[in-house]
This record gives sequence, C-alpha cells and structure tokens, in this order.
Amino acid sequence: MNAQAAPTAAVLIIGDEILSGRTRDVNLNTIARFLAALGIDLMEARTVGDRQAQIVGALNALRQAYDYVLTTGGIGPTHDDITADAVGAAFGVAVAEHPEALAILERRYGPGEFNAARRRMARIPEGGSLIANPATDAPGFQIGNVFVMAGVPKIMEAMLQDVAPRLRTGAVVHARTIRVVGVGESAIAEVLRAAAEARPDLSYGSYPFGFGTDGEVGTQLVIRGRERAEVDAAEHDLSQELRYLGIDIAVT
Amino acid sequence: MNAQAAPTAAVLIIGDEILSGRTRDVNLNTIARFLAALGIDLMEARTVGDRQAQIVGALNALRQAYDYVLTTGGIGPTHDDITADAVGAAFGVAVAEHPEALAILERRYGPGEFNAARRRMARIPEGGSLIANPATDAPGFQIGNVFVMAGVPKIMEAMLQDVAPRLRTGAVVHARTIRVVGVGESAIAEVLRAAAEARPDLSYGSYPFGFGTDGEVGTQLVIRGRERAEVDAAEHDLSQELRYLGIDIAVT
Repeated sequence: MNAQAAPTAAVLIIGDEILSGRTRDVNLNTIARFLAALGIDLMEARTVGDRQAQIVGALNALRQAYDYVLTTGGIGPTHDDITADAVGAAFGVAVAEHPEALAILERRYGPGEFNAARRRMARIPEGGSLIANPATDAPGFQIGNVFVMAGVPKIMEAMLQDVAPRLRTGAVVHARTIRVVGVGESAIAEVLRAAAEARPDLSYGSYPFGFGTDGEVGTQLVIRGRERAEVDAAEHDLSQELRYLGIDIAVT
Repeated sequence: MNAQAAPTAAVLIIGDEILSGRTRDVNLNTIARFLAALGIDLMEARTVGDRQAQIVGALNALRQAYDYVLTTGGIGPTHDDITADAVGAAFGVAVAEHPEALAILERRYGPGEFNAARRRMARIPEGGSLIANPATDAPGFQIGNVFVMAGVPKIMEAMLQDVAPRLRTGAVVHARTIRVVGVGESAIAEVLRAAAEARPDLSYGSYPFGFGTDGEVGTQLVIRGRERAEVDAAEHDLSQELRYLGIDIAVT
C-alpha cells in the first residue's frame, strides 16, 4: 500500500492518568481519523507517563522513524506538565518564553490575572513555532517534525486545524466493509485468505463482533487500498464468492 | 512511589484497525484498571499494526524493559492474525499446534466443523502455556513474561481472569481526588506545586475539565501513593489550603 510513498506518522500520548486507568484516552482515535483523511499512514502510537526520560526516549525514537509525530498532554500550567521541557531536552535546545505566546496569554488574562503559572504556558523549546488554540488560547507548538498539543480532547481537536496545513498529504486510503452476519471468522477465513493473496496491493482485515456477548454475532471484512477502483473490484469479487457460498452479507 | 519495588508492566495493542481509526481501543483502559487493582505499575503502552517486524521490535523492547507485557489482538483464525507467529519470532522459537489447545477447540466444534482456519487458533509458540478463554474457548497464551490475549474486548476481559493469578502483585496505589469547580489549573498551580514538593513520595496530578466546551469548568486534583495514611494526610492538607484561599472544593 506504500507504493506512492504516503507520509508516515506516530502518536505519542503523554500522561500518568492514562496509564493509571483513571482516564480513557480518546485522542488517539481522533488523530487516527484526522491523519487517514489526509492520506497519512499512522504507523505506531505510544503512551508514556509524566516522566522526562520516558518522553525523551519515545520522542527521539518516533521522530527519527516517521515523517511526523503528534503528541498530546502535559502542556498546561501545573508542575506535572513537563512536556515542553521534555521536548526541549529531546531536541537538545533550551526552553524559553516565546514572545508571541506571551502576547496571546497577556491578551487573554487581564492585568494581575497573568500569574506565574499562566506564564509557564508561554514556554516553548527554542526554534519552535506556535500551534493556535482557538478553544482556550494557550498555544501548542511545532518543532521540527513534532507537533505538541494539549491533552484535553476538545482543545486537542481544535489544535489539529492548525496542524493540518503543515502536513504533506498522501493519497487517501479507501475502505469498503462487507458485513457477514451469523457466521464467525473461521467460516470465511479461507475465502478471505485467497482474496488477499490475489490482491497483494490491498489490505484485507477481518473483525469479529458480538462474540462473548449475547447479541448478534458476525464478522466485518474490511478491504483497504489507495486505488478506489481496485478496492471496489475487490469488494465485488469477494461479495460474489461469499454469496456463492450461501453466506448472508451487507456491503457498506 | 517505587520504594517497595512494585512490579512493572507494559501493554502492546496489535491491530491495523486501531491505527486506521476504524476502531477505538478500549482494552488499554481495562488493562490499566486491572493492573492498578493488583498494585502493578503500568509504565508504557504501544500500538502497532499487523506487521511482524513491528510486533517483534516492540515486544522485544517491552519484555526486556518491564516485568510483564500484556498484548491484545491478532490471535483469531484469519490470515491477518499474525500475533502467534510474531511472538514466536520475537522469542526465537517455532510455532506449533498445542495439544491442549487442539483438544479445547475440538470439543467446541463438532466433527467436520473443525476446519483449517479453526485449527490455526491452536498454534502457540513452543514453550507457551494456555490462557483460558471462558467467553469463546479459543485460548490465549503465555510465554515467558508475555501474556497474549484476544482483541475483542469481552474476550480479552474474560482472559484477564486467568492472567491475574500468574502475576506478582504489589501494594495498591491509593488515590484521592479533590474537585475544584469554577477556577482553572492556573489558580491553584502554585499551591499544588508546593504540596507536591513537600511530599515527594506522592504523585500530584492536575486534570482540567470542561475547557473548550460550554459546560462547567474546573480541575480535578489527584493525589496518589502507596501509603493510604500519607495520601489521606496529603488530601487533608491540600484541601485546607484551598479552602483558606476561598476556593470551592469537593473531595471524593
């Protein structure tokens, strides 16, 4: 699927609250769909705690391996928000108050309201540029191929709008889903394997549903590829084969 | 917080459907809460696609760095289920039909129903032991410090019950939450920093809520530690300080 050299990306989720189980991350899925719409292949995601060595290690591994890294979490005003310092350490640059970020925050908070904690949110690694935050003003930042965003989902989503124009896009991956109801994966495994082998440029996935519950059971077959006509043809062929076997399907 | 050398763990989520955005992972949160209840520190999580080299690389990094690795996904009967082979490759061992797994699957499926695809689910890396699957029978497996489970949430949850007794447990981390309504993190950042510095054995986290939405805004302050009395004392002290500043709080 990478014949057209689609850009690649990784996500780095930063926050003890995800690893402790207190908070269920929703940002990864939002970013995954955002990147998919731009034709960028999300290759990997990591979740680390609020520990500088861990953030630095993960960030340096990911930014060298992929075209882009998008991070979430740890850029607020409190002592446990260490992402800016960790990113600075990863790049080997100092972290300092960014004049434009200071101006944005000064505008937001009245005189006397702009305390030390809030000033902290203007600290950006040297060489970084700001990512606008239309939700609550305090900006994220980009340095090199790394995009540093807030962890609060509504704010993170708002920041993505200023990230999008900075990314090189690829051909979008088209997907067709064949919904097979009443039989499990095993019943269609051989047909699916043969179909996948016949079209090595496409990806064929099989995702069972309903198992382990009392509800309807079945399997979603997902065909993905960057050539829409090929995906459509593959869906047509596989649907015919399944119908020929007497299996009930619905295509979406 | 690691004075008592709590066991450490990592989670490895395997599946293209998570990275494409098609599926939102819920297993990480389930496992995080499961490990927290056992006093095991979840240190890191990674999500990789259905690609052997990626699974092998991540698994070998994680199993060397932490006491336990729990994986989800890729152990079904279809061609895209490559986790057993990848785990075998990571450990440098062959993957073969496991007699006990074969017997379990033969019991589940009648004669003539036990096809090649279903047999595939009996393939386990050599030296592995089975993890019971009370939901749908097809087992997971353990090899070394790695626990390989299904990706379907209900099945994964059922498998955790057979993983629990195999894990060394630690002292459970106690958490108290102070809910601060009507003010943001910046208003309490200095008080919180001072509190955290005064009790270096505890972890103090600050999690804003409501920002970027039209709802109620505020901050949840979470104090965590393995000594319940110390956590309670820390909550008492911080609550008093916040009340002294005229800030409305609720403790849970």
